[in-house]
Amino acid sequence: MVDSPRGTTTRFRLQLSYDGSEFHGWAKQRGLRTVEDELGSVVDHLVAEHVDLTCAGRTDAGVHARGQVVHFDAERVDRLTLDHLNGALPHDIRARQLDVVPPEFDARFSAQWRRYSYTVSDDPRGPDPLMRRYQLALSDELDIDAMNEASRSLVGEHDFSSYCKVKEHGTSVREVLELKWDRLVSADSGLRTAIMHVKADAFCRSMVRSLAGALIPVGQGRKNREYPAQALEKRSRDAGIAVMPAHALVLEEVGYPAADQWEQRQWRTRSVRSGHQWNEKSNDASNLGP
Amino acid sequence: MVDSPRGTTTRFRLQLSYDGSEFHGWAKQRGLRTVEDELGSVVDHLVAEHVDLTCAGRTDAGVHARGQVVHFDAERVDRLTLDHLNGALPHDIRARQLDVVPPEFDARFSAQWRRYSYTVSDDPRGPDPLMRRYQLALSDELDIDAMNEASRSLVGEHDFSSYCKVKEHGTSVREVLELKWDRLVSADSGLRTAIMHVKADAFCRSMVRSLAGALIPVGQGRKNREYPAQALEKRSRDAGIAVMPAHALVLEEVGYPAADQWEQRQWRTRSVRSGHQWNEKSNDASNLGP
Repeated sequence: MVDSPRGTTTRFRLQLSYDGSEFHGWAKQRGLRTVEDELGSVVDHLVAEHVDLTCAGRTDAGVHARGQVVHFDAERVDRLTLDHLNGALPHDIRARQLDVVPPEFDARFSAQWRRYSYTVSDDPRGPDPLMRRYQLALSDELDIDAMNEASRSLVGEHDFSSYCKVKEHGTSVREVLELKWDRLVSADSGLRTAIMHVKADAFCRSMVRSLAGALIPVGQGRKNREYPAQALEKRSRDAGIAVMPAHALVLEEVGYPAADQWEQRQWRTRSVRSGHQWNEKSNDASNLGP
Repeated sequence: MVDSPRGTTTRFRLQLSYDGSEFHGWAKQRGLRTVEDELGSVVDHLVAEHVDLTCAGRTDAGVHARGQVVHFDAERVDRLTLDHLNGALPHDIRARQLDVVPPEFDARFSAQWRRYSYTVSDDPRGPDPLMRRYQLALSDELDIDAMNEASRSLVGEHDFSSYCKVKEHGTSVREVLELKWDRLVSADSGLRTAIMHVKADAFCRSMVRSLAGALIPVGQGRKNREYPAQALEKRSRDAGIAVMPAHALVLEEVGYPAADQWEQRQWRTRSVRSGHQWNEKSNDASNLGP
């Protein structure tokens, strides 16, 4: 935390939802509409200064969020409320919760896990028109059991190079904590969907859409059940896995450890991601995952 | 059913869903995009002739459907399949089911009831951005019990003149079979919504949005619980009830009696709606409602 000559800064944690359809992703890009830009300009206006936003998951263009988490530091905070935020934000971004947190909290580096969903309409009649913006439309019925069997080989700590679109600066080792497909038949429309739920300590770029890209062909019977694990073994971006479209992907939730572990988690994550050795400093470290 | 000199016509019942956001309602209007136009041109193309479409509920501009029902007659029907329809329809219309029916079936006049939903986000944080296109956004928390108490006085057969935007050609007597509000807290977003479910033998123009317009102020505490019944008593379009926005309204389902009652139901409905006396012809008539 940086001391300010003018006063004391307060750190905030903000939880938000957005429809990514009309955003060029989270991160600022000159001349393009992004979540960071829209949210940043509202926060800047309310606190009457420029603040930097740090988010838990830098969503790509077209990706949605129900539970994105952001932190920022500000000085003049009397006008900073959930109501003021929602009053000024566009309708495709909603602030869900705003909390004051200690400076040890870091939305990105204190996070313990991220959970995403990826929804596929595999009904021959096509997706529910009211949900089509958030579903990938396929005409083949997906074999949920086959996709779940293939998914199991990807759970655990692995080098996900084959599932990362862009070379990471540090390591592409990630721990997938949960990966499963559910079958849903809508009570409203009678239409069938398949939903992938995936939870990991973190994801490299395009990783969730690549997991869907390896598993969906298994569900279609176009690849065998061993294909996703074989692709993983190649540890190469040349493994040929398709990156599936963004509009069916939602960042659902970000998990954090208990408050007394925020700082420790943050420094551990920073060192792991940069590829450096991290030394166990506490016997609580086992709670944080391998 | 009209006999054709060229051959035999077949009557089809088509069930469909659509996102009304980008339609100027069901009915054809020159120069405007409507569901009847888009669906009609696809059906015309597949059967290589011009067919007239009859729907169960003529939805207004911006109103959605999950279970609209349409009938039409066609001669050359070998290319008329659900797959061909969905292959040619725009993504905001989906054909859900296609059946051959006897000529006694009439999508509009054989229908026994229509069921609509009207969804309000009354969460102070605003609607889930991914659902905002289909929810009315209000900031006051709605009192569901108060709205349900007020709703009970509207159930049954009444003259709904106060709830009809436009004077009906025939009678504005309708029978509301069910009218209730449910509270829902989304498991995905944690956000609160209130949903009105209403089922009636039929609805006059703007009736569902007027029912919402009378009941929502009760939920907000701006009107007392007797207000909707008092407005009903006025039997006048001047009762001052607001017609709520279209985007939160969905035609969910249309109910039909058993096949042997289609024709009877059709002629009964035609005579009731035109205000003429209908004579009981069968002791099965009691099944059709008063």
